[in-house]
Amino acid sequence: MSTSAELQANSNLHPIAPLDASLLTITRAETLKPLPAPGYAFDHMLVMEYDPLRGWLAPEIKPYGPLPLDPSSNCLQYCSNVFEGMKAFLGPDGKLRLFRPDKNMQRLAVSAARMGLPTFDPDEVLKCIKKLVAVEERWVPTEAGHSLYIRPTMIGTKPSIKVGPSSNAMLYALVLPVGPYFPTASPTDAGVSLLAVGEQVRSWPGGTGGFKLGLNYSPGFVPQQRAAELGYDQVLWLLGDEQKVTEAGAANFFAVIEREDGGILVVTPPLDGTILPGITRDSALTLLRAHAAAPSSGILGLSPTLAIHVEERTLGVPELTRAATAGRLLECFGVGTAVLVVAIERIGHVVHPKMHTIEDIEMRGGLKGLGQVGRALYHKLSALKEGREQYSGWSVLCE
Amino acid sequence: MSTSAELQANSNLHPIAPLDASLLTITRAETLKPLPAPGYAFDHMLVMEYDPLRGWLAPEIKPYGPLPLDPSSNCLQYCSNVFEGMKAFLGPDGKLRLFRPDKNMQRLAVSAARMGLPTFDPDEVLKCIKKLVAVEERWVPTEAGHSLYIRPTMIGTKPSIKVGPSSNAMLYALVLPVGPYFPTASPTDAGVSLLAVGEQVRSWPGGTGGFKLGLNYSPGFVPQQRAAELGYDQVLWLLGDEQKVTEAGAANFFAVIEREDGGILVVTPPLDGTILPGITRDSALTLLRAHAAAPSSGILGLSPTLAIHVEERTLGVPELTRAATAGRLLECFGVGTAVLVVAIERIGHVVHPKMHTIEDIEMRGGLKGLGQVGRALYHKLSALKEGREQYSGWSVLCE
Repeated sequence: MSTSAELQANSNLHPIAPLDASLLTITRAETLKPLPAPGYAFDHMLVMEYDPLRGWLAPEIKPYGPLPLDPSSNCLQYCSNVFEGMKAFLGPDGKLRLFRPDKNMQRLAVSAARMGLPTFDPDEVLKCIKKLVAVEERWVPTEAGHSLYIRPTMIGTKPSIKVGPSSNAMLYALVLPVGPYFPTASPTDAGVSLLAVGEQVRSWPGGTGGFKLGLNYSPGFVPQQRAAELGYDQVLWLLGDEQKVTEAGAANFFAVIEREDGGILVVTPPLDGTILPGITRDSALTLLRAHAAAPSSGILGLSPTLAIHVEERTLGVPELTRAATAGRLLECFGVGTAVLVVAIERIGHVVHPKMHTIEDIEMRGGLKGLGQVGRALYHKLSALKEGREQYSGWSVLCE
Repeated sequence: MSTSAELQANSNLHPIAPLDASLLTITRAETLKPLPAPGYAFDHMLVMEYDPLRGWLAPEIKPYGPLPLDPSSNCLQYCSNVFEGMKAFLGPDGKLRLFRPDKNMQRLAVSAARMGLPTFDPDEVLKCIKKLVAVEERWVPTEAGHSLYIRPTMIGTKPSIKVGPSSNAMLYALVLPVGPYFPTASPTDAGVSLLAVGEQVRSWPGGTGGFKLGLNYSPGFVPQQRAAELGYDQVLWLLGDEQKVTEAGAANFFAVIEREDGGILVVTPPLDGTILPGITRDSALTLLRAHAAAPSSGILGLSPTLAIHVEERTLGVPELTRAATAGRLLECFGVGTAVLVVAIERIGHVVHPKMHTIEDIEMRGGLKGLGQVGRALYHKLSALKEGREQYSGWSVLCE
C-alpha cells in the first residue's frame, strides 16, 4: 500500500481527474421492472467512483443493483456517509423540474467536506443526476402532489479499519416515485402529532446537526419508536434545560404566534449548527420576508393587511406553552423536501419528569391542519415545485 | 412488501430463528493470501444475516470478499452501524486467548439495541468468533505485543430509504494481524501529544457517545486532521464551557495527580453517557482499586506504601492546567483495546480563543512516557492479555 506521502507525490506527478459529467456512460437494464411497492426498487442508478490515485472515474448510469463493498469499508465502520433528498415534478407543460437543485448539490459538497470525503464540482454531479432522471422518466408520477424522489448519496469506500478520512469514495444516486405526505387526507387539513423529547438529543453546539449526514438519523430511530408507542407521529427534538426546539422529525420547525399588537410572528430556530439548513426552510423564509417587505405584492396570496414578522431565533417549549395558554398559538408546521409543509396538530411534552406526565400543546381553536400562513406557503411552494409558477429562478428544468 | 403488522403476525405464526452458533458452516478459501500490508486483507470472514421473516440464518465462515449491499441500505443511508474491537494473543503455552470477550459481546448487543437493530444472544456470536479465529490462526503474530485484531461489525441492511430502524441486518467479523501502538519505541518510554478541542464536540449528554457506534467516529476525522497539521497526534475531546475532558482520540483518558497529602490521585471521567464504557478502562479501574484496597497485595507491582485514590468524576482542562502549574501532574495516559496503555506527553489547549494561542500542558519533569501508575497498568494488562497471568477469569482461551 502507498503511504499518504506517496499518494501526494503521485498526485503531483500525475494530476488526478476531477468529476466530469461529460464522461458519463449509460448502460440500460435489459429488463425493466413492474411498478414496485412504494419505497422500493428501481431500474437504474447513477454511480461515480473516486480513487485516490486516479481521481473521479467516468460516471456511469447502470442497472440498479447491489454495491460490492469491502467489509472493512470506512462507510460501514465509521459512517462517513452523506446524502441529499430532492424531488422532480412533472409540470403542466409536461416538462420535468427540480427545485433549487444547486442548493442540494452545494450542501452535499459541504457535508462531504465535513466527513473528510473527496471534493467534487457540484454542477457536474447535477448534470449526471439530470441524466439519471431522464433515463428513469417512466417512473415520474403524473398525479398531483406526486413526484420522483432523488436520493444522492456519498459513501467512504476505503477498505481499511484505520480511523481516519476515506481516501476512496462512491457518489451514487437512486430514484423512486413518491406520493404526498398524507395519501388520503387533504394536506392542508391533516396534521401530525409531535412528542417533544429532551432525554435523547439529536444535535448539539459543536456537533453535526447542521450537516446532512446519514449519522444524524439512526440515533433517532429508537426515540421515534417510543414516541409512536405513546401515540405521537414524530419527535420534536429539544436541546438543553431551556427545552430549545431544534427539529421536528426530519423537518424544520415553524411556529406562528399572534402578537399583542395583532401582528403575526412567524418564528423558526436559527442556523446555529444544531439545525439542518433546509432548502424548503430557506425558501419559506424568503417568501415570508418578501410578503413582510411588500404585503401588497400578493407573493403568498395573503391579505395585504396581514403584518407578518419573521424571526429566526431560539424558541423553547415554555414559549410555545405560554402562547398556547394565552390563545395566541395560531399554528405550527414542519417544512422539508419530504413533507413540503406539514401541519402540527399537537405537541406532547413532559410536564412532571418524575411522574412522566405528558400534556399536549394545542393550536388555537383546536386547529388540526394548516393555518393561513402554512396554507399560503404550502400552495406557493407546491406551485413553484410543480412548475406552475416561477420565483427567482428556483424552478429548474431537468434537461 | 409486508407491513410491520404483517411481519409481526407472521412472526407469531412462525417463530423466527435465534442466532445459533451450532448452525455455523465453514467454507475455506481456495487460495490463501500472502502476508498483506498492515491493516489490509484477510482470508476469511464470519457472516451472520438476519431476515425479519426467518430470523437469524445459519452463520457462515467464508472467503473474505465484498458484501453486496443495496444502495438504499439503512446502513449506507442512516448509519445504523455498530462495531467492536478485540484482540487475540498467543500465550506462552502456545494457546490463543481473548480478554474479557463477554464484555465486548454484551456491549455489541447494547449498541445494536440503541440503533434499533435485531437482538441476538451474545454468547452465540462469541462462539462463532472463536471459530473464525481458529480458521485464521495462521495470521496470529508470534512476536511480543503483536496480536490478531478482531472487528465484529453489525449493519442494518434493510433496502429502503424509509427513516426508521432496519428490519434486516448483517453481523460480520473480520480479523487482521496488528503490532504494538509504537512500532519502534518502547511503549513505556514513548508518548503521544493531544490537542484539546472544544469547538467540535464528540459527544454530549443525551447523545450516543456512551455506545460503540460507527457514527461516533467519522465526525472526528476532520478535527483529527487539523490537530495533526498543528503537530499533535490525537484530539482530546472537550465538552462545554468547563472544558470537561471526555475521550482522548479513541481511548479513555486518565490523569495521575499528586495530592497535597502525598497520596496519588488517579482520575478518569465518569460513565455519564458521553464516554465509551471501555473494557480496558474498566479493567484498569478494577486493578487500581484492588491495589488501593490492599496495597500489600502487590496486584500491580506497585510499592505497598503507595496510597492510590481512584476517582471517576468530571475532569476539566483547568484542573489539569492547575495541577501541571503546581508541578503535581505526574502523568496522563489513554487506555483502550487498540492502544492498551499509551502515555500522553503533552496536551495543547487554546488559551486565548481569539488569538488562537495554544499552550501545552506538560507532565512533571517533562516526562514523555508512562509514569509509575501507567507502567504498572501497562505491564499488568499486557500480562493478562497475553495469558502470562490470570485475574478474575479475564483471560479466556479461544477454543
